[in-house]
Amino acid sequence: MEKKSKNIVENINNNETSLGFGISSIFIDEIRNAIRANDKQYLEDKILILHQADIADIFEILSKEERKTLFSFLQDKLPAEALASLDEQVLKDIIDNYKPSILGELIGKLETDDASYILENLDIEKRDALLEQIPKAPRNLIIQSLQFPEMSAGRLMQRDYVAVPRYWNVGQVIDFLRGSSKVPDQFYSIFIVDPKHMPVGTVPLHKLMRSERKVILSDIMIKEPVIVSVTMDQEDMAFLFEQYDLTSAPVVNSQNRLIGMVTVDDVVEVIQEEAEEDMLKLAGISGDTDLYLAAWQTARSRFSWLFINLLTAILASIAIGLFEGTIKQIVALAVLMPIVASMGGNAGTQTLTVAVRALATRELNQSNALRVFGKEILVGIINGLIFAVIVGLVAALWFGEHGLGIVIALAMLFNLFVAGFFGAAIPLLLQRWKIDPALGASILLTTVTDVVGFFVFLGLAQMLLI
Amino acid sequence: MEKKSKNIVENINNNETSLGFGISSIFIDEIRNAIRANDKQYLEDKILILHQADIADIFEILSKEERKTLFSFLQDKLPAEALASLDEQVLKDIIDNYKPSILGELIGKLETDDASYILENLDIEKRDALLEQIPKAPRNLIIQSLQFPEMSAGRLMQRDYVAVPRYWNVGQVIDFLRGSSKVPDQFYSIFIVDPKHMPVGTVPLHKLMRSERKVILSDIMIKEPVIVSVTMDQEDMAFLFEQYDLTSAPVVNSQNRLIGMVTVDDVVEVIQEEAEEDMLKLAGISGDTDLYLAAWQTARSRFSWLFINLLTAILASIAIGLFEGTIKQIVALAVLMPIVASMGGNAGTQTLTVAVRALATRELNQSNALRVFGKEILVGIINGLIFAVIVGLVAALWFGEHGLGIVIALAMLFNLFVAGFFGAAIPLLLQRWKIDPALGASILLTTVTDVVGFFVFLGLAQMLLI
Repeated sequence: MEKKSKNIVENINNNETSLGFGISSIFIDEIRNAIRANDKQYLEDKILILHQADIADIFEILSKEERKTLFSFLQDKLPAEALASLDEQVLKDIIDNYKPSILGELIGKLETDDASYILENLDIEKRDALLEQIPKAPRNLIIQSLQFPEMSAGRLMQRDYVAVPRYWNVGQVIDFLRGSSKVPDQFYSIFIVDPKHMPVGTVPLHKLMRSERKVILSDIMIKEPVIVSVTMDQEDMAFLFEQYDLTSAPVVNSQNRLIGMVTVDDVVEVIQEEAEEDMLKLAGISGDTDLYLAAWQTARSRFSWLFINLLTAILASIAIGLFEGTIKQIVALAVLMPIVASMGGNAGTQTLTVAVRALATRELNQSNALRVFGKEILVGIINGLIFAVIVGLVAALWFGEHGLGIVIALAMLFNLFVAGFFGAAIPLLLQRWKIDPALGASILLTTVTDVVGFFVFLGLAQMLLI
Repeated sequence: MEKKSKNIVENINNNETSLGFGISSIFIDEIRNAIRANDKQYLEDKILILHQADIADIFEILSKEERKTLFSFLQDKLPAEALASLDEQVLKDIIDNYKPSILGELIGKLETDDASYILENLDIEKRDALLEQIPKAPRNLIIQSLQFPEMSAGRLMQRDYVAVPRYWNVGQVIDFLRGSSKVPDQFYSIFIVDPKHMPVGTVPLHKLMRSERKVILSDIMIKEPVIVSVTMDQEDMAFLFEQYDLTSAPVVNSQNRLIGMVTVDDVVEVIQEEAEEDMLKLAGISGDTDLYLAAWQTARSRFSWLFINLLTAILASIAIGLFEGTIKQIVALAVLMPIVASMGGNAGTQTLTVAVRALATRELNQSNALRVFGKEILVGIINGLIFAVIVGLVAALWFGEHGLGIVIALAMLFNLFVAGFFGAAIPLLLQRWKIDPALGASILLTTVTDVVGFFVFLGLAQMLLI
């Protein structure tokens, strides 16, 4: 980061950014006023000196209309990296307004991974038209990148790296780096390759710096380094970076030849994305955050989950409907029944969330699944017993009927047991069946705890109280 | 990572690890067998060659008893870094079994941040006893580190860094690095300090490597670098690393003097932790994952949330209780009422989760709060209208009563509007009141959607149907 971040950092240090993030809300207000006043010069002066990520944040925070106006003022001068830092949805808003020639030039300046991020957000025709504007060498790399599966290491890697043979000495590397123009903007290690261009070692820069010029690379290189295959899923790759505290890793093709490099900044983004995805999926929002979608698009994307929820709610209603006669005789049942279902849903969600998260971080796996499963059932029984007593007493006192207390106590115990059982079983099974446990699990779980909650409570009441 | 990670990585590349993570379940089975057979030699041979993070994973995955036995075999030989990689709970299981002299020696070998992580998991007496075993210089640094607030940059920083004056040239730095023994194990940048030891610039190693020996540092340094204050919250720090793609940053004390360095591997952990914390809090689990707690401890830690949920469920029951007479006359109401509440809860949770996550990533803030709030209300109304029609038709057909359809349709529309309103308002307000929006928000929300759902549906029924 070469640009004006000093104030931003001081703000954060002093807790002075009411926005919490780099750019203050006062600054955004000034930008908004300038947009309204068509003050192009002011906007250029204030915005173009900022770091690319802060520029992207400004675009994200503005409304769709403000965004378009600001873009019309700045477009020729916006740094290409700012585009690559934009949220997908905001990028789509802006990208269509570019003259193809300018956009092509910008994309040509980017690293391959950033270029393909922008291009994958264009429709095929525009993409092809743009690709023609890009010089042949980078164009081929971009096309290759777009052919790797989404969320793979191939998409995230950059094609620039430093690779040298193992018999070189430190002095040769230093001279090479000083002389060569084909070196990446940022790198943390150099890769050592054999004659077939297969990576056989890495040397972190700090190790290189601390070694005498005459030292041979093979003597200081890390042997058997972590190597990422081009098709590796980004989640697996992120795991390797975390587990082994990596800052970069060589990427190899199916012939195990070095073709690129992934760096830790990309991995940081992957980690954020994956955590966000799981969190949103648990709440019934598939994929990315919909913060930047229009209201009707958001409503449409959330509809399907709510519709499935409606079906499961109707299922619960059907369970209740079986006991209409019982409810008619003891209306207190209708009053109390949501308690049983709600407690089951909550206890189950606790278990479920721990399990989904632990599966994602690989702390939960085949080797300890049975133990965790058993423990969660036990937790359900322990809290089931405690809440059975509490709720039983509350119900008995409220309605002055011992029988009602006993029925709700039994139903509570059973439903919290069920919650623990299914809260752990559902994500484990989904994972085994290669279904994303974050996505389907919570709806399945609450269906079970609702239906079981209503059915057992009302069923017991019918058996014992009538 | 210097050790046996090759097979692990190949396994991941080949999708062959049934565990998903670095160590295969077959390997764990072998370890378990060796533990049972008391085969100390086998365990040493197989485990001690592994990377510290993999060793930690093995301990985490074993049961409490297996853990203890394995520890008794390996204790003198376990690398200190493996201890620092352990989950807090597992660390506590192990740490009490150490001879203080051995533990003191191990801790003395660690970087300050890792040493204080281990020490903060001991009770005060043991901590003090251990500290006495550690040589004076590192001991003082560790004590200082423990005095910084938890989750602050001060806790995460290491005290080793490379700092040189700006008038040095590249050659001097290289000679200094080659000659000095007081250089951190890993570093990615050198820091440039003024005579008061205040950081005025940074030079990434790759820039240093590519510059001629005679180049003066002040000509290649990044001016106004991102500087972290020792009291900065780890979340803010992580934000800076992400925003500006940092690999390390200088940490300063209240006099703005350089006292340490944070590196990206620590930040990667912070990002994981913070995302996990939010996810678990939304599900009613405060703080860390309880995966490694015993069943009764887990039950106890989850109890309080369930108890609060019980109170809110009783509140909803009281709302229903107001309409006992109405339900007695029209039992269909009891059958249908959970649908209204459930849909409200789900729609609200969608909004809430997007808002909580966007607040955490700072995409949602003062400058766009009003717009997001308005949008969420609109989303609630749109889906409210659609589901009003669907549910209205279902109810009318099911019970053969138009009136019932109209009542549930109106209640659904109103409750999804309420869900959007409070789903967005609650986290925004909690954040403004400096309360963690992840923790209280979902219980508040479902209380509102439950109570409103039951009250409006039954209230409308009483007004319109009786």
